[in-house]
Amino acid sequence: MVKFGSNAVIGQSGGPTAAINASLAGALQSLISHQEITKVYGMSNGIEGLLKEKLYDLRNYFDERSDGISVLKTTPGAALGSCRYKLPDTDCDDNNIYKSLFDILKKYQIGYFFYIGGNDSMDTIAKVSEYATKNNIDLKCVGIPKTIDNDLVMTDHTPGFGCAAKYIATVFAEMRRDTAVYSQKAVTVVEVMGRDAGWLTAASSLSKTEYTDGVDLIYLPETPFSYDKLFTDIERIWKNHSDVLIAVSEGIRLENGKYVGADGSIKDKFGHLKLSGAAKVVEEKIKNRFGCKVRSVELNTPQRCASHISSLTDIEESFDIGGFAVKMAFEGNTGVMSGIVRNSDCPYSSHFELFDIKSIANKVKSVPDNFIDTENSFVTEKAVSYLKPLIFGEVYPIYDSGIPKHFIFPKI
Amino acid sequence: MVKFGSNAVIGQSGGPTAAINASLAGALQSLISHQEITKVYGMSNGIEGLLKEKLYDLRNYFDERSDGISVLKTTPGAALGSCRYKLPDTDCDDNNIYKSLFDILKKYQIGYFFYIGGNDSMDTIAKVSEYATKNNIDLKCVGIPKTIDNDLVMTDHTPGFGCAAKYIATVFAEMRRDTAVYSQKAVTVVEVMGRDAGWLTAASSLSKTEYTDGVDLIYLPETPFSYDKLFTDIERIWKNHSDVLIAVSEGIRLENGKYVGADGSIKDKFGHLKLSGAAKVVEEKIKNRFGCKVRSVELNTPQRCASHISSLTDIEESFDIGGFAVKMAFEGNTGVMSGIVRNSDCPYSSHFELFDIKSIANKVKSVPDNFIDTENSFVTEKAVSYLKPLIFGEVYPIYDSGIPKHFIFPKI
Repeated sequence: MVKFGSNAVIGQSGGPTAAINASLAGALQSLISHQEITKVYGMSNGIEGLLKEKLYDLRNYFDERSDGISVLKTTPGAALGSCRYKLPDTDCDDNNIYKSLFDILKKYQIGYFFYIGGNDSMDTIAKVSEYATKNNIDLKCVGIPKTIDNDLVMTDHTPGFGCAAKYIATVFAEMRRDTAVYSQKAVTVVEVMGRDAGWLTAASSLSKTEYTDGVDLIYLPETPFSYDKLFTDIERIWKNHSDVLIAVSEGIRLENGKYVGADGSIKDKFGHLKLSGAAKVVEEKIKNRFGCKVRSVELNTPQRCASHISSLTDIEESFDIGGFAVKMAFEGNTGVMSGIVRNSDCPYSSHFELFDIKSIANKVKSVPDNFIDTENSFVTEKAVSYLKPLIFGEVYPIYDSGIPKHFIFPKI
Repeated sequence: MVKFGSNAVIGQSGGPTAAINASLAGALQSLISHQEITKVYGMSNGIEGLLKEKLYDLRNYFDERSDGISVLKTTPGAALGSCRYKLPDTDCDDNNIYKSLFDILKKYQIGYFFYIGGNDSMDTIAKVSEYATKNNIDLKCVGIPKTIDNDLVMTDHTPGFGCAAKYIATVFAEMRRDTAVYSQKAVTVVEVMGRDAGWLTAASSLSKTEYTDGVDLIYLPETPFSYDKLFTDIERIWKNHSDVLIAVSEGIRLENGKYVGADGSIKDKFGHLKLSGAAKVVEEKIKNRFGCKVRSVELNTPQRCASHISSLTDIEESFDIGGFAVKMAFEGNTGVMSGIVRNSDCPYSSHFELFDIKSIANKVKSVPDNFIDTENSFVTEKAVSYLKPLIFGEVYPIYDSGIPKHFIFPKI
């Protein structure tokens, strides 16, 4: 078993979130305090930057006296930069990518490899770890999960999901107050992110409390979508009040499997269909059917970067899971992802565990059947019990002259 | 001079904002404390509800012991309900609308009439006040301004603008962190509300601070928009960094006067063109020109209802101007709007004054030339000095189980 050294490298990958920097901050706080680690490197733009040796020497940016760690904790995006880079299979290294990668790891004396991301990123860490094992290299590879989509298997939920869910629930409660001001019949269709898993769309249900009337109808990608059913649902709500507020996932599909908002022609490099406009399509259908006032709203990127209203539960878990990953690597674990195990809903409590990375990469966790009501137009109490604690508590960024203060690395 | 009585009625009208209920709360706190006012009525859905005698007896909902006033202060929307109702000219009362209205005012012994709204609502109060004067009726009519658009003349700025501006500036700073995560050339086009006045779009400039790089290019409806100029501007920004963040007003117009996002066929009852999709149109043009990754984002209704991040300056002024309007009515003023006069930018201070309602109704205040840079693609330091203090300070709603608590009147 060859060991390159005991330096550490950490990277971020995939779509940005409001909590991915909290995980980076948590891992960094732990890494920086370990004096046996001489260098803590940050990959600029994930593995893509690592392959070009674009590395931050992170101790230069943080020390115990500065407020860097706490500002980073509430900065949205992915402070180190991100990438969408798919490694080839470890037995198909025709372009010598693994050779280049491991030459760089050797040059920088890396013994610890951390990667924060979603299921595509866990695929990366699975492969790096597999290659190391096959070649008898002592490299501790630990994945730190993040995705607003909450679609990773094994972990109870993903860091980043709670912040997005809180933003969505809050904005639905607020949009409800906005739609309620006029008395004529009207429909507002709000499109929520989540291509194949309806977790974020389901979170709109949390806008319905004893203090607000929130969302009326929720359509997830897990069940087939039907316009006739939608029209019946709208007429049912109109019996109670004139303004109908609807949440649709960007990924709702018709009975025939066709995405409502798909143009069908564009796929990204992981083979995912690029969707847009489900709410716009639904808006037109409702206008044609009822001739009433209809507005569509696409919540868009603020869903994943609105760190001005973050879930305390999510930010604290995201921070702590970063520290846990570092601890687990130091204890000799590799080829694993740190995940969250829920102890109880109410009062909410959780702890961290390790999961085999191969059981996570490239899999998608959908909203289960018993979370969706029998009418397929709302979620169940069971879903609400699961979702609710994840948005508990508020964290606010530090403001300067009315604007949140963010942590920004210089470009390298 | 006939006096119907000394009861008061208050209504809200026009588009909802995050601060219109703060003005209602401020006026109510003052009205409720005046024991000589036996009844304080709230119009359900503005003057439209008043004409149907849909009135709340507001003392029943608020007393000094409850937290109603403070919850109302941070509730978005228009708690009493709103309308878009245009009164006829006072000398054209063919349908006896003024007769009906004043019969109702007499029945409820109204001596004080308050209306919170934008320039269309000031038109309403101008007419009600004019009719009262012509018919020798002692009715004190005072307008309380609100509009996120900041397009009312005379007042330095409008209550509601600061909250919307703070949300926009904050979200631009956050979207900047989101767009900065990838290294390839990309453009994000964000559409901001404001049909004919670019105040809200200009507020995106506040996202550019020493702590964030914010918005790159700003296009207002006050100057002609040109695609060739846009392409040159994008290429200039690309020399500095790969992700270009652009703010466009929904009302940007080409040299020939045509709205970029207009379908041209729909007008509302005040004769305003209904716009949508300027950012979408610009997105397509940039894609076709450069073939790079382009995303368009329409900030949409959260701009006017995201009270989860409110400007302290705006909420306090909105609350206080409500109280000022009541005081002025009691001092015998009528046919006036309470407005804000700025004493200084830095440190910011302001006071309230009354303005003749006829000098305000149906007029629009545009962003002045010296607020727009010579390239027509950003705003000047003078604009920033004007805008900045309006977003100072943060107010957060009261949260319960992770969701903001809102004040909701039962429907009548």
